[in-house]
Amino acid sequence: MAEKITPQSEDFSRWYTDIVLRAELADYAPVKGCMIIRPYGYTLWENIQAALDKRFKDTGHVNAYFPMLIPESYLRKEAEHVEGFSPELAVVTHGGGKKLEEPLVVRPTSETIINAMYAKWVRSYRDLPLLINQWANVIRWEMRTRLFLRTAEFLWQEGHTVHASAQEAEEETLRMLNVYKDFAENEMAMPVVTGQKSLVEKFAGALASYSIEAMMGDTRALQSGTSHYFGQQFAKAFGIQFLNRDNELEYAYQTSWGVSTRLVGALIMVHGDDQGLILPPRLAPIQVVIVPIWRNEDQKQKVLEATDQIRRQLAGQFRIELDDREEYSPGWKFNEWEMKGVPLRVEIGPKDVDKSQVVLVRRDVAGKERKSFVPMTNLDAQVGDMLETIQAAMFNRALQFREKNSFRPTTYEELTEAVMKGFAYVPWCGSAECEAKVKDDTKATTRCIPFDQPETVGPCIVCGAEASSEVIFARAY
Amino acid sequence: MAEKITPQSEDFSRWYTDIVLRAELADYAPVKGCMIIRPYGYTLWENIQAALDKRFKDTGHVNAYFPMLIPESYLRKEAEHVEGFSPELAVVTHGGGKKLEEPLVVRPTSETIINAMYAKWVRSYRDLPLLINQWANVIRWEMRTRLFLRTAEFLWQEGHTVHASAQEAEEETLRMLNVYKDFAENEMAMPVVTGQKSLVEKFAGALASYSIEAMMGDTRALQSGTSHYFGQQFAKAFGIQFLNRDNELEYAYQTSWGVSTRLVGALIMVHGDDQGLILPPRLAPIQVVIVPIWRNEDQKQKVLEATDQIRRQLAGQFRIELDDREEYSPGWKFNEWEMKGVPLRVEIGPKDVDKSQVVLVRRDVAGKERKSFVPMTNLDAQVGDMLETIQAAMFNRALQFREKNSFRPTTYEELTEAVMKGFAYVPWCGSAECEAKVKDDTKATTRCIPFDQPETVGPCIVCGAEASSEVIFARAY
Repeated sequence: MAEKITPQSEDFSRWYTDIVLRAELADYAPVKGCMIIRPYGYTLWENIQAALDKRFKDTGHVNAYFPMLIPESYLRKEAEHVEGFSPELAVVTHGGGKKLEEPLVVRPTSETIINAMYAKWVRSYRDLPLLINQWANVIRWEMRTRLFLRTAEFLWQEGHTVHASAQEAEEETLRMLNVYKDFAENEMAMPVVTGQKSLVEKFAGALASYSIEAMMGDTRALQSGTSHYFGQQFAKAFGIQFLNRDNELEYAYQTSWGVSTRLVGALIMVHGDDQGLILPPRLAPIQVVIVPIWRNEDQKQKVLEATDQIRRQLAGQFRIELDDREEYSPGWKFNEWEMKGVPLRVEIGPKDVDKSQVVLVRRDVAGKERKSFVPMTNLDAQVGDMLETIQAAMFNRALQFREKNSFRPTTYEELTEAVMKGFAYVPWCGSAECEAKVKDDTKATTRCIPFDQPETVGPCIVCGAEASSEVIFARAY
Repeated sequence: MAEKITPQSEDFSRWYTDIVLRAELADYAPVKGCMIIRPYGYTLWENIQAALDKRFKDTGHVNAYFPMLIPESYLRKEAEHVEGFSPELAVVTHGGGKKLEEPLVVRPTSETIINAMYAKWVRSYRDLPLLINQWANVIRWEMRTRLFLRTAEFLWQEGHTVHASAQEAEEETLRMLNVYKDFAENEMAMPVVTGQKSLVEKFAGALASYSIEAMMGDTRALQSGTSHYFGQQFAKAFGIQFLNRDNELEYAYQTSWGVSTRLVGALIMVHGDDQGLILPPRLAPIQVVIVPIWRNEDQKQKVLEATDQIRRQLAGQFRIELDDREEYSPGWKFNEWEMKGVPLRVEIGPKDVDKSQVVLVRRDVAGKERKSFVPMTNLDAQVGDMLETIQAAMFNRALQFREKNSFRPTTYEELTEAVMKGFAYVPWCGSAECEAKVKDDTKATTRCIPFDQPETVGPCIVCGAEASSEVIFARAY
């Protein structure tokens, strides 16, 4: 606990790693590129899972589990897919003390194994739609890794659906993108832009990829979730055919969509400050920490009695922690829980007991405004209101930050400056050449072609040719 | 749906496989020894997970996630452990297109990687106890595999705890064994014997292993959960030391405990019959299926209106399914839902509507007794009561079955006969030789030395030497 967190302004990247380690969200593993998700970080992930899983089930999806090891030959069935994932594969060559006849790859994603099974299960339009999701670990061998954001092994969910028509599959693709947007904005308090990926940035094997893109605290972009429309591409590679209503064999239409433990990294970078994490109440492992304060034994008894009343009033309704440890000072505890991002602190000292009040301290705002004195009666209702207020304020703060750092440059030079400061919305002709030029010059990539488009767009900011739409360029994680 | 399920009496093993495939619990994977857990089977696992996870958290445990790939050298740190698991390892030799400097094994269990981290995290008695659980996939290369019961990859949970004293660790070991017993009996409706494993059957690296043992429908035993006391064995191998209250460095005391997707196999084999699955209400993905019955359009409208009322009365309180499909007959639906083991069926036809009643049909009993006619008013309360009744009756039926097939042979010959019919409780001297002789002669192994012991035991049933305790011999999965 002694070491200081590096200030964001000094080195955002070191600030990030300091937070992850100091808040005990994760630790480095002895295997290169892997991480341990520690209990505090894993509880965050469990809360993320629960909120997403409910949304998946409410939209008619069920969970299943497919094998982690995939025959190498399966990956080769879809040409673009194998090309995209080959450089990142971990390969099992030995099992039970013997060399395997065919090497097995550890799934980097499960399209191939899942589609092999779908080819067996799908027979008729009556079997459709097939709406399956999987929570699993995957491995993508990465050279430059970063806790939560880019690790060789990570946890994620991958939805894989099969439909009887292109229209239905396209609707599903966008439905799940909107589920992600809803989750990001309402649970994570993280505003996102939704849009379509460029051909260069799309998923290997998809006809169209869509993403939610968020702005981090250093104004870089983080692709936070993706949803893909496959058309019949994988169905043809794996032979997924069904008898349609006209009794004709037809290849099925498919989607896939996923988010990962990278979302924990997003939470840190969107909301955190130099004191540590700031967690949105809906996902925080601990929503309220109660810190009793006393100086002598007389005060102690009086304060702890009142504290116990408070604890009983709040328990069951909120995720609370009572910090009545005697070996640490109140000031030390305040720092500790602020570092861990607990949204609301309840302080109670002897004077508060006399006045039948407590002090509520918000994590998300600074200065005097963060403190309020409230009566002990109906504390639960006031805490509930305060957590709602914090959730909304965090979203608004992040939205304002993104707006402030979003630009509409009108020249190429302005574009190269804008991407160093945030999101650059510019007209683009759609060519991979123009996209590559910006990337070469600035390291910024196209994030997405937002659904939300201006009424008219000027000529391509790179080549001057006619532009069909506006795209976001930004440096990204 | 056309093929018949093989009767239990004809071939229990084929009956089992038929059920797994026909009820769509699981399917074979293209990778040898692996399986796909299909949505109906996975929902069962989710319900098992939820009930266990709540118990783990109520006893102070938190979840975390450790890497799946473990350096081969880690496994070698504990001699007995590596010897036990070496023959079953899957090995990753290539990553990102290159041969790895050190091969990585896919975890067969996580003691080694977790203890390497604990050595870093544990410093003082103040850090203890450390009570961490992990939900994960593991791989053990198996030659003869069987859906759910023994597959190369399976899903499980593994608890790994660290304590400041041997006594505390021993208490934890038994606490978690009792959590498993409580779960098995109250959620799975599966009676279990708790006891200690023999030295031959214990976990590789443990000082003492304990298990819950259940009797399947063919009278064989299934080890359904284990809890291990490690003493300081792993702590010494991995250097997990803490400053104790006397300010002296001491090696820590540890436990581990786990259950797996094998429990789904147990559910099938303890309760199922020739019509299919019979699922205990507390874990059933669907607790109540509502089947409306009509012959003509007039009846249809009347019946569906009443059905809708029923649906609204039961939804939210129970996991229900309304089967109003028109392409299948009521009889076909009855068979289908019986095969899938839904504990309770609600039938409603035109005559029932006239009488404001419904027919409740229990899955767990046969003959006329399974049907009852109950009024539509307060149906929810009656359904709730009936599900409780079913849960209790399933447990009692399984308990009676086990009692009926448990024996106390008094000669070696009787023992060899008894193990062909069920559990044999016999005095045993504790020697590995006597244990091996029974196994060689009958294929039966020691299941456990039950905690519940008779007041006195006779001489060892194999060698006639003095016996310290009674042990259960049985053929096992």
